[in-house]
Amino acid sequence: MAAVLTVGTEITTGLRLDTNTAHIAAACTAAGYRVTEAVSVPDDRDRIASAIARLARENSLLIVTGGLGPTHDDVTREAAAQALGRPLRRDPALVERLQAIADRHGDERAREQVLGQADVLEGARVIEPESGTAPGQVVEAGSSLVVLLPGPPSEMRPMLEEVLGSRRTAPEPIVLRCARIAESDAQLRVEDALAAFPKIELTLLASPALVDVVLMDAGAGRDALVEAAQAAALALGEACYSMDGASLPEAVVRLARATLCTLATAESCTGGMVASAITDVPGASDVFVGGVVAYSNALKRSLLGVPEEVLAEHGAVSRETAHAMASGALRLGARVAVATTGIAGPGGGTSDKPVGLVWTAVATPERVEAYRLKLHGDRQGVRQRSTVHALDFVRLTLERM
Amino acid sequence: MAAVLTVGTEITTGLRLDTNTAHIAAACTAAGYRVTEAVSVPDDRDRIASAIARLARENSLLIVTGGLGPTHDDVTREAAAQALGRPLRRDPALVERLQAIADRHGDERAREQVLGQADVLEGARVIEPESGTAPGQVVEAGSSLVVLLPGPPSEMRPMLEEVLGSRRTAPEPIVLRCARIAESDAQLRVEDALAAFPKIELTLLASPALVDVVLMDAGAGRDALVEAAQAAALALGEACYSMDGASLPEAVVRLARATLCTLATAESCTGGMVASAITDVPGASDVFVGGVVAYSNALKRSLLGVPEEVLAEHGAVSRETAHAMASGALRLGARVAVATTGIAGPGGGTSDKPVGLVWTAVATPERVEAYRLKLHGDRQGVRQRSTVHALDFVRLTLERM
Repeated sequence: MAAVLTVGTEITTGLRLDTNTAHIAAACTAAGYRVTEAVSVPDDRDRIASAIARLARENSLLIVTGGLGPTHDDVTREAAAQALGRPLRRDPALVERLQAIADRHGDERAREQVLGQADVLEGARVIEPESGTAPGQVVEAGSSLVVLLPGPPSEMRPMLEEVLGSRRTAPEPIVLRCARIAESDAQLRVEDALAAFPKIELTLLASPALVDVVLMDAGAGRDALVEAAQAAALALGEACYSMDGASLPEAVVRLARATLCTLATAESCTGGMVASAITDVPGASDVFVGGVVAYSNALKRSLLGVPEEVLAEHGAVSRETAHAMASGALRLGARVAVATTGIAGPGGGTSDKPVGLVWTAVATPERVEAYRLKLHGDRQGVRQRSTVHALDFVRLTLERM
Repeated sequence: MAAVLTVGTEITTGLRLDTNTAHIAAACTAAGYRVTEAVSVPDDRDRIASAIARLARENSLLIVTGGLGPTHDDVTREAAAQALGRPLRRDPALVERLQAIADRHGDERAREQVLGQADVLEGARVIEPESGTAPGQVVEAGSSLVVLLPGPPSEMRPMLEEVLGSRRTAPEPIVLRCARIAESDAQLRVEDALAAFPKIELTLLASPALVDVVLMDAGAGRDALVEAAQAAALALGEACYSMDGASLPEAVVRLARATLCTLATAESCTGGMVASAITDVPGASDVFVGGVVAYSNALKRSLLGVPEEVLAEHGAVSRETAHAMASGALRLGARVAVATTGIAGPGGGTSDKPVGLVWTAVATPERVEAYRLKLHGDRQGVRQRSTVHALDFVRLTLERM
């Protein structure tokens, strides 16, 4: 059993989103620990100390992050000393490394604060920082291992890996990533497939137009986990776009590479989100030639060659316009082009064409297919869902090539 | 003093990032509460109960979210009953509303799970859901107010507003949002400006290429807070792009509206991120005509008219290409156009043109200015910082119009 404690007033006042907890909890889970509690407290020595004392008493592993830096509100070291009844000793090797930084400060108090980072709990093992100045500390307290790590994710993560890396015991969960399927549908299909695997735990995680089906080992072992995942993937069918953690844009880029297909985009309502999702993938330039964000009708005509009469007769949000946009985007020099046009809201909807109506189309030199979507959510939600649908139509097109 | 408890195994296994805590903590802080602790526990009745009991004892307000839905692992109601020593009573009005949903299920257990959402703690006030099926509950327990809210943010947030809306006591913090300034620079400038305001608390929050300078009232009162914010804004100068919470793209769209300027984008390394940031703002279509994602040199030539010899002589990542891209994007029909071209990595860098080198340019019919940036971070970081810089150059251009 493990617990996570994140320290910082920026967290408890809601000024900052705490992403360390999720990262640490996932790493602990992968290392075979069950995380019983994740706690955040402000930069307050007594509150930190009482949280450390309680969580160390109740768990065999406690990971603490934050409050190890050089400023006056970094009091986690002192709090841990108080909670665990261990004095702090200044480590000479750490002092030596910090001295140069301390000497940059004219002010004596600033120098002392920098050197305070060399204070180590009696009996603790020091984890050298790869970046940053604050070292990590690992100390045994009763039957619990207490780990103090700095707060900045880039400093914290390598140290966490160092501490947990050798402890990985449970097989890592397998995540079947799916698009354009309802969470409840995915659950029904997978539950049937998993009936033969009683020791596999199932969790479903939905985000706009996406569902992650997570299979975790609960005593079945690695081979059974893989077998269960294969059965579940079969049941999910073409909704499942990856089994190795790849995101939908990553799956699209990978497929485009494998099929030697180049890609282009023509976006109206998504306004560049499809292109930016694709170009977020390292190496996307091998397969992505570019795209057009044709927000105005004038650009739909001039850059994509959408005929004036199509726009006049059917409007910008229509099967015909989506069709023409995708075909027009092929002229950018791609083998597969995808287009989106719709009403993301909050304004612009009519009874005929309400907010959430989106047309998307995928074109190849051989054919064009358009899809009508009725998406829910606010502006951001409609745009996100449109982007997922567009990428997934490209994925299916590439899979059939 | 307030505490936040989020319930869900998806949080304690790190499968999901908990965003509710930050939202609730910010709302509690704005309502004048000091959040002493934020806790997450798995869907485990005993753990939820013991967290509720402890946090309600130690705080005058406890907000609990998650575990109120209809599935078997939704056990927050039962846990609260156990922790607070209050029986659950099935609310007839709620049953009536849920009956139609329950009747959709053939299975008796499924029906019963739906109706379980009508179970209310004795003496609790029910908060009707605006969306979703699970109601919220507010109950006084000893000297503490305990509030149970559903987990999905869209269901939780309106209920939280209902509970806290009338309790706002402290003036809301004022956030001075800044771009392209180092956190330490911002701090130095603001600290001097705030010397005359001892009862204003200062927090700085940095994200890629952005710094939020947060001023909080610590007993000075609303008028002094506003006066301090004005002094700080003066010290921050043109780095500060908003004082009312508007994001950088929102500030850009607002300025474009005010100056009757239309906008266009020409993106290489940012691959659509600038366009999608602008089009994320409701009503952006009033000022944004569109853009080009010119990832390949061929598209830089054909869609933006970048001369072949510029690309051959200076390369795609150069002052000259950025210049030509921005000028070319004016042809899309805009008054102000912005271009980005750079090396986002991880591959593609050379000693001459390393990863992180980005050129951005802003063109108006009167003139074009290009800026050389050397950005740090991984691919995503470089792209994000490029996007911020590009938007901020547009902002400054619009401010001078």
